[in-house]
Amino acid sequence: MSRWLSAFLLAVAALLAGSIGTPSGPVESAQPEKKPAWAIAVHGGAGGAPPAAGKTSPREVALRAHLNLGREMLAKGCSALDTCETVVRAFEDDPLFNAGKGAVYTAEGKHSLDASIMEGANLRIGAVAGVRTVKNPITLARMVMEKTKHVLLIRDGAEEFAQKLRLEIVPNSYFDTPKRKKTPDDKKDNTETEGGGTVGCVCLDRHGNLAAATSTGGMSGVMAGRVGDTPIAGAGTYANNKTCAVSGTGTGEQFIRHNVAYRISVLMEYKNLGLEKAADEVIHSVLNKGNGGVIAVSAKGEIAMPYNTAGMARGAADASGRFEYGIGKELRKEKAP
Amino acid sequence: MSRWLSAFLLAVAALLAGSIGTPSGPVESAQPEKKPAWAIAVHGGAGGAPPAAGKTSPREVALRAHLNLGREMLAKGCSALDTCETVVRAFEDDPLFNAGKGAVYTAEGKHSLDASIMEGANLRIGAVAGVRTVKNPITLARMVMEKTKHVLLIRDGAEEFAQKLRLEIVPNSYFDTPKRKKTPDDKKDNTETEGGGTVGCVCLDRHGNLAAATSTGGMSGVMAGRVGDTPIAGAGTYANNKTCAVSGTGTGEQFIRHNVAYRISVLMEYKNLGLEKAADEVIHSVLNKGNGGVIAVSAKGEIAMPYNTAGMARGAADASGRFEYGIGKELRKEKAP
Repeated sequence: MSRWLSAFLLAVAALLAGSIGTPSGPVESAQPEKKPAWAIAVHGGAGGAPPAAGKTSPREVALRAHLNLGREMLAKGCSALDTCETVVRAFEDDPLFNAGKGAVYTAEGKHSLDASIMEGANLRIGAVAGVRTVKNPITLARMVMEKTKHVLLIRDGAEEFAQKLRLEIVPNSYFDTPKRKKTPDDKKDNTETEGGGTVGCVCLDRHGNLAAATSTGGMSGVMAGRVGDTPIAGAGTYANNKTCAVSGTGTGEQFIRHNVAYRISVLMEYKNLGLEKAADEVIHSVLNKGNGGVIAVSAKGEIAMPYNTAGMARGAADASGRFEYGIGKELRKEKAP
Repeated sequence: MSRWLSAFLLAVAALLAGSIGTPSGPVESAQPEKKPAWAIAVHGGAGGAPPAAGKTSPREVALRAHLNLGREMLAKGCSALDTCETVVRAFEDDPLFNAGKGAVYTAEGKHSLDASIMEGANLRIGAVAGVRTVKNPITLARMVMEKTKHVLLIRDGAEEFAQKLRLEIVPNSYFDTPKRKKTPDDKKDNTETEGGGTVGCVCLDRHGNLAAATSTGGMSGVMAGRVGDTPIAGAGTYANNKTCAVSGTGTGEQFIRHNVAYRISVLMEYKNLGLEKAADEVIHSVLNKGNGGVIAVSAKGEIAMPYNTAGMARGAADASGRFEYGIGKELRKEKAP
């Protein structure tokens, strides 16, 4: 008996459930949801402490510039994919972040770069790992996605492909910057980027498409050949028009173990969580304190940027005029430039 | 009003729901569920056609032997992790499968090996990609898990680590076998392994722990540096004591794109599907026909082995006496040896 009663009650509850989320009453509640025409979030890593109150750090100035580059592109109607690639290229060319120029050194005293990009409309992915001579790994990742049947190319195979495409090739020393520690014994001040400095961008464009891109120089002083979450779709990068686009930064091993980027999407798809709840659950309940953070944008144009470290270099903008960026808890809010 | 009524009905339904799954009535329904003390499944790839009816192929003979090796270990009380590693080593040493000895050739005429292993109790993972000189990549993957803070090591970094550990190092030509095509123009009969031949093992042990392991020689004639799903936790390999252990074989790019192994776990965890339904949904509804298959064992000792190709070399055994293996639709069922 109880079986059929339960099934009946469940059915009745399901019929009524539609009204739970929306307040009953006035007619205006039936109006279509306001959705910004586009939205963007960027990050420059979850390592290091925020600057002292009142001061603006060079990294914040850079964050603002790269965020604005993406904002302008999306406002003009550029695709999420083009915008993600262009913004991440700007971060790669910027020596203040741990991606491209300015990458940290491995234990061998070399730079080893990983990147990935994913398109939400069709779940296409391109990724590269262990690249040493390609100026912009994110562009190579996009070429893997668009010009091969594959998802991930590593080391010299990836570099040969870059040469064939005539992408810009540089000596490994191009990525050098004086502030990075070359060896673990090096006394240089590396605190701002230890365990962080990875860069990423997630976008919703005017056409309703999502994309995500992430690029990194890995971990400082790490053993040769180590690859983290950045080139792993589902761990450090994920995009699906049904749910959201995500880019992560932090202890890559934890992001792989807990399928961080895809898990946020899954919590939205299978458990009907909103973007913020889904991202918060993964960063604050699944990961451990100090592991890192994510930026995420939903198909509705919502933005979430949770982290569990002392600070995360991040910024967000959308079609409603939102424009904010910073490293510590409080973001600088400006009128869009 | 409807809001509160719905919430009330949901609560009543939830109270009654416990009785939905179990038939009401006789007292014996309250007995604990029968759970086999241990369970194992193995695969040797989802490529190629099954042998003609009535014939036993050499691959089936090999499947039977490697399945029995794992069966004996689990029956004796060995851990899921030890059993997975040992069984996958046996497949790697067997020239009939595309992993270790017998691996296919890349477009360069070389062998490039990937492997990963995962422990369900603590979500620890070890993986290697692009390895060329390590006799048993699955053992190196386990060493990455147990002796480093990392999850994934690639190419020479992985090989230097293997040398440091004094694992068995072999020349790349060790992996040669006469039946494999060395170049795409080569006329040798390679049909049995085209797009398949990857090997894997998933186990539930007597202690209630799950583990999964996968090893591959990749795709025949593929571009240098290409890495598929095998070393990607969540794509080709996954284990979580809460849900299941999974090992995949097929078109790796599709397994990465759709987070195949972790998705099966998620459908169990977040949507309460049983193992078979979860695995079937991913193989038959998410993937495309011809993409491949998985072997999976649940924390309850259930086994699922769905595939969407012409055949998948596979086998299953458990503490209840189940012992079966084969490549086509029908499995050979035997009394456990």
